[in-house]
This record gives sequence, C-alpha cells and structure tokens, in this order.
Amino acid sequence: MKNQKTVLKEYLDEKKRIVDSALEEYLPKQTGFSYEIAESMRYTLFAGGKRLRPVLCMASAETVGGNADIVLPVACAIEMIHTYSLIHDDLPSMDNDDYRRGKPSNHKIFGEGVAVLAGDALLTEAFCLLSGGIRDLSPEKNLSIIHEISTAAGFQGMISGQVADLRAEGKKVNMESVDYIHTHKTQALITSSIRAGAIAAGAGEDDMRALSEYGRNAGLAFQIADDMLDIESSREVLGKDTGSDEGRKKATYPSLIGLEESREKTRILVENALSAINRFDERAEPLRMIATFIAERKS
Amino acid sequence: MKNQKTVLKEYLDEKKRIVDSALEEYLPKQTGFSYEIAESMRYTLFAGGKRLRPVLCMASAETVGGNADIVLPVACAIEMIHTYSLIHDDLPSMDNDDYRRGKPSNHKIFGEGVAVLAGDALLTEAFCLLSGGIRDLSPEKNLSIIHEISTAAGFQGMISGQVADLRAEGKKVNMESVDYIHTHKTQALITSSIRAGAIAAGAGEDDMRALSEYGRNAGLAFQIADDMLDIESSREVLGKDTGSDEGRKKATYPSLIGLEESREKTRILVENALSAINRFDERAEPLRMIATFIAERKS
Repeated sequence: MKNQKTVLKEYLDEKKRIVDSALEEYLPKQTGFSYEIAESMRYTLFAGGKRLRPVLCMASAETVGGNADIVLPVACAIEMIHTYSLIHDDLPSMDNDDYRRGKPSNHKIFGEGVAVLAGDALLTEAFCLLSGGIRDLSPEKNLSIIHEISTAAGFQGMISGQVADLRAEGKKVNMESVDYIHTHKTQALITSSIRAGAIAAGAGEDDMRALSEYGRNAGLAFQIADDMLDIESSREVLGKDTGSDEGRKKATYPSLIGLEESREKTRILVENALSAINRFDERAEPLRMIATFIAERKS
Repeated sequence: MKNQKTVLKEYLDEKKRIVDSALEEYLPKQTGFSYEIAESMRYTLFAGGKRLRPVLCMASAETVGGNADIVLPVACAIEMIHTYSLIHDDLPSMDNDDYRRGKPSNHKIFGEGVAVLAGDALLTEAFCLLSGGIRDLSPEKNLSIIHEISTAAGFQGMISGQVADLRAEGKKVNMESVDYIHTHKTQALITSSIRAGAIAAGAGEDDMRALSEYGRNAGLAFQIADDMLDIESSREVLGKDTGSDEGRKKATYPSLIGLEESREKTRILVENALSAINRFDERAEPLRMIATFIAERKS
C-alpha cells in the first residue's frame, strides 16, 4: 500500500499539472505591443509555484461533493492574484528581493515599471477570468465568488497585511503585529481559496464555517512552516543561523518565539485544522493530508 | 435662456457631487492597521478629478432610458480603476511625476511602497464594489459589466497602452505607436465606462454599437485635447513653447502633427462622436454637450 506522503504527492502533482495547463490556456503568449507585458506576467506565473491555493480551492470543492473541474477558472484566478502579490512584494520599494524561487525576480528581468504593470495585469486578468462565464456556475454564485476573493485580496485583507509588513520591517514587532500580518497577508487569500471552491460547489452554511476554520488554521500553519523553513534552510545551506527573513528582521513567529515554540504552535494549528473538518467523509482526505504535511514539508 | 456651457457645467457639477459623495461612502476613513493604506487611496481619489468616466457612465445609462442612480456603484468602481492607473503611472519607475493636479503625487506623500499598494487596493476595491450586489441589476448584467471593465483595464487594454507609452518615452515614435497608446491607455476605459452604463440600463445591440462609436471618438478627442492643453498651458504659464509631455518627449498627437492639425483632428472626432449618437433623443444631450465642449475646454 502506498503511504500517505506518496498519495499526497501524486494528488498535488496531478492538480498542479491541471492548473498549469489551464493557466497556459488562459494566458497564452502574445505578439505585437502586448508581447512584453504578457512575457512578464508569464515569467512569474510559470516560475514553479506549488499551486497551493488552486489545489486547496479544488480540494475544498471536492470535499463538499463538487467537481474540481468546475472551479478550475476560479483556482487559476486565485493563482494569478497570488502571483501579482509576489511580483509587487519583491519590488525594490517593498521587500526588495532580487530572487524568487531561485530565479531573478520579475523586476530584475523586465525592469521595475513593467513588473508593476505585470502585477496590475495579473490582478485585473483574474477578475476578467472570473467574470468571463464559468460553465455550470450560476451568475449569483459567480458574483459571490468574485466578492469573496476581492474582499480577501483588498485593502482590508491581503494588502493591509503587506502594508503592516512593510512598516514592521527593521522595527521591533510584537505578537499582535505578527498575527495581523499573517492573518491578512497569507491567511486571508488561502481561506478565501477554500471558501471560493466551496461556494462554487454549493456548500451549505455549516460546511462553509467548517472549511473557513480549516483555512484559517492551515493558512497560519503554512505561514509559520514557511518562516521556519526559511531559517532552517539557510542554516543548512549557509551553515549559520540567520535566514533571509531574520537577516532583514522580518516579523515572523520563529523570530519572535523561536523555532521550538513555533513548531509546537504549528502542531496545534494543524490539529485544529483537522478537527474543523471532522464532519466530512473521505472526500476531505486531500485537505487532511495537506494540513498534516504542512508542518513536515522541506520546501 | 441659459447657454449650453452653463447647462453642461451644472450637469457636470451635479454628477461630480453625487459621485464624490458615493465614493466617500464606499471608501470611508479607516483606523488601526488599515489607516495608512486607506488614507493613501483617499488622497488621490479625492484629489479633485473631474469624474469624467463616472459622468459618461451615468450619462450613457440615461441616454438609453436608464437611471443614473443604478449605475452609481459602477461609475464609482471605474473612477477607482482610473485613480489606481494615475497613482501607478506617476511612480518613479513609470512617468516619474512628482505632481498630479498641482498636488504632490501619491508616492511623494506616502512613499513608493504604499503608493504601489494603494493602486493595487483601488483596483481590487473596484471589483469588490462591482461584485457586492447592485440594486436593480441582474447578476447576469452585473457579471457582464465586470467582464467589460476588466477587459478594458487589463493587459490587452489600458495596461498594454501604458507599457507602449513607457517604451516610447524618449524615442522617436510614429503615428502607429501614438494611436496604439491612445486607443489602449485612454480610449479603452472611457469607451468601457460608456458601455458599462449602457449594459446596466439594458441597451440593445444597436444602441451599444452607437455608444461604443461615440466613446471611441470622444475618448480620442479627449486625449488629444488634453495633450494640446498641456502644450498651450505651459506656453501661457511659462511663456515658452514646451509642455511637460513635449519636454519628456511623450508620444502625443500635437508633438507628432502639431497643434493646428491636432485641432482639426479633434474637430473631426467630435463630429463623428456626435453623428454616432444621432439615433438618440434629448436624453443624449449630456453626451452631446460633453463631446462638443471637449475640444474647447481650458482645464
């Protein structure tokens, strides 16, 4: 019998393949005056992301008995929004990151002006895709999904988190700020991905509540695991104790409460995420596996 | 009897007042962590814009027998998108403008990072507003309006125009590039404002075609008039012949074909705009007056 990790890996690979090929269809190469902007959008969109948010969106739809294919455009729109946020976060006026996933960041290749516009374009394209008619989805649900996602991505969600992160850099931050940043910058869009998938699949109120609870816990666990990885991987690679976040004094759990306590916090969050979706049958297995292995992942 | 100019001024003032007060309601002051981003969004949103796009959206709805109040959220969302594009256009990595409408531009007040995010937030908020449920508008029409606007604002519309503009700066440009820039950067969203108003009011295909034709002609006339003003006003104020666009070698009609020919081109465009909406009754008067006085405006 395959072990759970292999099952999850196959599930993630399969979903990633579906998402990548749909994104390729939604954002094909361009010619003429829109050649450069499309290249810039595609550069970061196809830079090797794990497609976590789209996978969660599809897994959530499946959990409540829906079809993952129906939510594919929704899943892809969310990935476009996530990608836009990465491009803008890397800008010199923000985190000033020259590299993203081992490749030069967007503005290092296309220049700052085009990088800003590529982010703008991905954000806009997401809403273009979401409003272009989604097969088997009622206009009411479709609108409700657009509202769900735009609220999470907006100035009271993801963007507020990025502003708080920007302002926290280099300062001594407390747990309140760190929680605010994580809740808004990461958790909001992750939870929204899960909720959007569930809305598309016609989930009832109780199911929505359970999935939102899962999303909040798994989303935060994911962020803390990411920050721990950042420290651990640079410790391994560089043979010293300073991760890039720590070096730049980013507001993270491990920098505030240490690796040990962060690991414990992640464990509890994963437990909460799992118990939140107790009510679902075996169709929730992908969500369960994703939460379980969040804390263990190595990249 | 009042002359047409007075009638138009009263119409524009009245509509601007309605739009401003609706925008104030949609984007109220914030406290806590979202205070700064909201202040930055509001700074440029309330910097004294003419609200041309919202007015055109409402006037277009009225032209086909609709109610301007119904399209108010649509009109406001379009103004948010227009404002986001101004904030990003002014950035050092784009046009590098320190001033906008006589006031320091957004990034001069809030810093580049927050200015990028304020633009992002206005763009996202527009879609949040558009998807939040619009009274007396069917979900089908609502979705179709979101698709209309996001297509015009996206990488094959407004953003392509800005990329082309960015790449044209400082270079010798031909009429093909200038036309491409204007068609995409300005005309697309203006035409879309008019179309969105008409969709909301339930316009038929022939009316939509007529209004789109009006929008394309009036939109280009508006842009050329703007570029002529830029040259003429700096000639008056500075006593010399160089406008800021010309100084930076921006791709414009007057810089390419001179003031005289530009004026003639504008006159023809206004004529075309007017004849496109011949089919409508007196409810199209605001659209007619706006087109007529575009070429004559002094600010």
